[in-house]
Amino acid sequence: MQSLVELYKVKANPPSLADNTGDLDRLRKVITGILKGKSPVVPYSRIAPVAEAFRQSGFNGYAAVIHYPNGPRLVDFYAEAPQFLLGMALDLGTTHLEASLVNLLDGKVLARAAEENAQLEFGTDILARIHFAPTKVNDKSGLDLLHEKVVDSIHKLAADLTGRINQQANEIVALAVSGNTTMAHFFLKQNPHHLCREPYIPVVNAPDPFAAAELGLNLHPAAIIWVMPSIGSYFGGDLISGILASGLDQQEKTCMLIDVGTNAEVVVGNRDWLIACAGAAGPALEGGVARMGMRAGVGAIEHCSIDPETGKLDYQTIGNEPAKGICGSGVIDLVAGLYLARIIDIRGKFRPDQPQAAGRIIEQADGLAYVVVPAEEARGDTPILLSQVDIDALMRSKAAMYSILTTITNQVGVEFRDLHHIYVSGAFGKHISPRQAIVLGMLPDLPLEIYRSLGNSSLTGAQMILTDGETRDRYLEVAAKITYVELNVNQEFMIRFSGSRFIPHTDHTLFPSVPFYVES
Amino acid sequence: MQSLVELYKVKANPPSLADNTGDLDRLRKVITGILKGKSPVVPYSRIAPVAEAFRQSGFNGYAAVIHYPNGPRLVDFYAEAPQFLLGMALDLGTTHLEASLVNLLDGKVLARAAEENAQLEFGTDILARIHFAPTKVNDKSGLDLLHEKVVDSIHKLAADLTGRINQQANEIVALAVSGNTTMAHFFLKQNPHHLCREPYIPVVNAPDPFAAAELGLNLHPAAIIWVMPSIGSYFGGDLISGILASGLDQQEKTCMLIDVGTNAEVVVGNRDWLIACAGAAGPALEGGVARMGMRAGVGAIEHCSIDPETGKLDYQTIGNEPAKGICGSGVIDLVAGLYLARIIDIRGKFRPDQPQAAGRIIEQADGLAYVVVPAEEARGDTPILLSQVDIDALMRSKAAMYSILTTITNQVGVEFRDLHHIYVSGAFGKHISPRQAIVLGMLPDLPLEIYRSLGNSSLTGAQMILTDGETRDRYLEVAAKITYVELNVNQEFMIRFSGSRFIPHTDHTLFPSVPFYVES
Repeated sequence: MQSLVELYKVKANPPSLADNTGDLDRLRKVITGILKGKSPVVPYSRIAPVAEAFRQSGFNGYAAVIHYPNGPRLVDFYAEAPQFLLGMALDLGTTHLEASLVNLLDGKVLARAAEENAQLEFGTDILARIHFAPTKVNDKSGLDLLHEKVVDSIHKLAADLTGRINQQANEIVALAVSGNTTMAHFFLKQNPHHLCREPYIPVVNAPDPFAAAELGLNLHPAAIIWVMPSIGSYFGGDLISGILASGLDQQEKTCMLIDVGTNAEVVVGNRDWLIACAGAAGPALEGGVARMGMRAGVGAIEHCSIDPETGKLDYQTIGNEPAKGICGSGVIDLVAGLYLARIIDIRGKFRPDQPQAAGRIIEQADGLAYVVVPAEEARGDTPILLSQVDIDALMRSKAAMYSILTTITNQVGVEFRDLHHIYVSGAFGKHISPRQAIVLGMLPDLPLEIYRSLGNSSLTGAQMILTDGETRDRYLEVAAKITYVELNVNQEFMIRFSGSRFIPHTDHTLFPSVPFYVES
Repeated sequence: MQSLVELYKVKANPPSLADNTGDLDRLRKVITGILKGKSPVVPYSRIAPVAEAFRQSGFNGYAAVIHYPNGPRLVDFYAEAPQFLLGMALDLGTTHLEASLVNLLDGKVLARAAEENAQLEFGTDILARIHFAPTKVNDKSGLDLLHEKVVDSIHKLAADLTGRINQQANEIVALAVSGNTTMAHFFLKQNPHHLCREPYIPVVNAPDPFAAAELGLNLHPAAIIWVMPSIGSYFGGDLISGILASGLDQQEKTCMLIDVGTNAEVVVGNRDWLIACAGAAGPALEGGVARMGMRAGVGAIEHCSIDPETGKLDYQTIGNEPAKGICGSGVIDLVAGLYLARIIDIRGKFRPDQPQAAGRIIEQADGLAYVVVPAEEARGDTPILLSQVDIDALMRSKAAMYSILTTITNQVGVEFRDLHHIYVSGAFGKHISPRQAIVLGMLPDLPLEIYRSLGNSSLTGAQMILTDGETRDRYLEVAAKITYVELNVNQEFMIRFSGSRFIPHTDHTLFPSVPFYVES
């Protein structure tokens, strides 16, 4: 394990007439020895502070060296051994930013925090923000504002995380960022225009690491900013992180990685090859369903079950707090339960006369809805409902997901049953019950032990960049090895999508473990 | 010959659905191929302009790549083949800055210019400026002001040079700077405090090259700033340039390099070893003699001779303009002539009764003076005089110079007659007559063909950094190979200095070719 930033103990002979080399050169010489002949570069802005600190320390202390891909950089010097050498890992999500603070001296996570993406002000979905980017607001462009907002959110997270251990954000010497391609563009203040226009070309896939001051970030001015590379407009650095976190690229047997955020991104492969695709899965799976959806957080219904005989609903909220909404995994459990209790049919439409639905179905302006939690039980005194509109959205999402999975495996001639593991990542992956997703026909009907939850692998991958040299050697290889299949223009995908818009599927032989009801 | 910045023709396939890599990555891939697998780094600030220019050009044009010591950097892209790729070489002198503009496409010098060092406002000699550095002037430090002044002078030179070929300073993509250690500190805005205090330690000897924007220079924002390394406080990058320009480090036979500016710096060696020392030679040799001295420029008396029989003086000015002063080489010719005509004695004191001095010696408040050019002949209607005070200063300078030369050769057990060549550089070296310097006992009494004039080798060395990859491979090796002898604390030097304060020397057997007069 070599951290992205390492501390080296330095004790140099003080200068004399017989040994009159410059302060910085004296320090560099010792470090070059420690690094087995690799001479560290000292950025211009760090010459004065490093040389001064080295002299003040009596030429005896601790040098901070950042291991850039093109060689080491000497950026700071401390007279006393610091307790922490701080790195920040960041999952730059479209709706939320999630970050962890890592002590690079031992690789331990010191704190973790999340922030809503302040860009939401300029558009909840990424496409709206891309369209906002070229507009002018006073003397600024939309892109300037989007960039500022995301930087604000990062500064908030950095202050929050470091505050918890009584440190300052300007002590963070490394930031590893993992996000989708568009978020990376906003972060880097790059024009997103071509990302959403055929043939969907990023300005840059793999930016070189650079210093915090170059982007005006309030971290240590020489902090390394490491942005995970993307493969295409719809396949971002967050997924490269997922591959690193799952070790997909090192597996002997073929595995699959599914990352569901606003998009569904899928990778299939092993240590010899990797193929990837991505497609819009809709917001349903992120808990973005119209009225009662929420992100996985305290008070969100994370799991629920419906007794197929009595229709009785049991639910469980995160933090065991009164329910205030329902997150993606809860929606999947709920719709699967509704199907098994026959409260909805194979098209996902309500069957209001079904006895198990008694007292639960209400009529609304836009159609029927199922009362998940009555007003008197819910936090905020409004009922938590699942409407027909919500279910329809989920049906599209689940159809998209399954179509993506079948299209990509078909491309490489792999059957689902050949997969050694299916890693499910993202907030979705952390909470989802694979069994309920199988009932819905969203995930293939495989033994449950095939499925592995990775949690927020975008964040995990970023953390690995901070703490593990072997991962840093691997990431560009991974990016180079991936073959990306563009689904937005894939005819086969569209055909599969139509076939998947039933529970579990038009071809129910694909889901032998799921009861299939034909009567309407 | 590989220039520090090279232009590469790039023609890439335009992006398509089947080939959807990012714009910058597409460009980088082609360049990596051209550079045989070396992938260029793109600095953060250059991502947007380079990617945009590449796209605007139809993915077809010319990429500018800077060859940093730690690898190539891609910094710009042009749709059309530019006529120039501009580099600036700079000799950062204490009193004057001299610069040349080089077309990096063919290595040709396009223009040359000089500027007085605007720092003179804060002290004519370097020590005064070092003492000024820590003072506060309003909200600025002396160092800030010294730095600003030198940057102002550089900006003036850059504007002047580029203006002559109808280009802009911001088109300069490389600046190679060669100067003494203190000037390098001022340029880099580094604290000069320890440079003049035992044990004379620089903040930095060998700064890594960096980008113009990091120092706020008005060149191309990504222009590489390459500062020649120093060896010690009194042995600067200008002398490393001199070694590169003379090829001292590549010679089979032992040679000597003498660079006289405000200090005299001397290197002896060959391809196997290099030994160096430096000492204060006084301002006399730079034309800084009290009243009539001037730097070599139009109207300066560059050469003169006195008929030893008649005392008739002939002189020659630079540009054949009316005389307005006398530069270092003129002073040496003059004092040698005065000695040979016996108008001064071996101690350099006037002999006013000598017939050859008739009508030329006048009495002034501070002693006798010799009329070089009478008022009516001189530009400015004041006579050009050489006073006893001036001669005394020259005597100290020449004694220092010869003592330095004997001390260093003695250190390595080399006799003067073993030297294959003596390279003389600096403004001094360009104009000096070695014969007259020998008469004075300033340079060893060797056949004149041993002496080679290098001109401004500080500038030449900087130019070689811009245009020649082999020189760039060599410069750090040279710096590492030099053994530096500190003369400021050398007892032997002080003894030799006393013996050298006669014309040509107390031991006249050392100068067999020079007439020796003992009568007072």
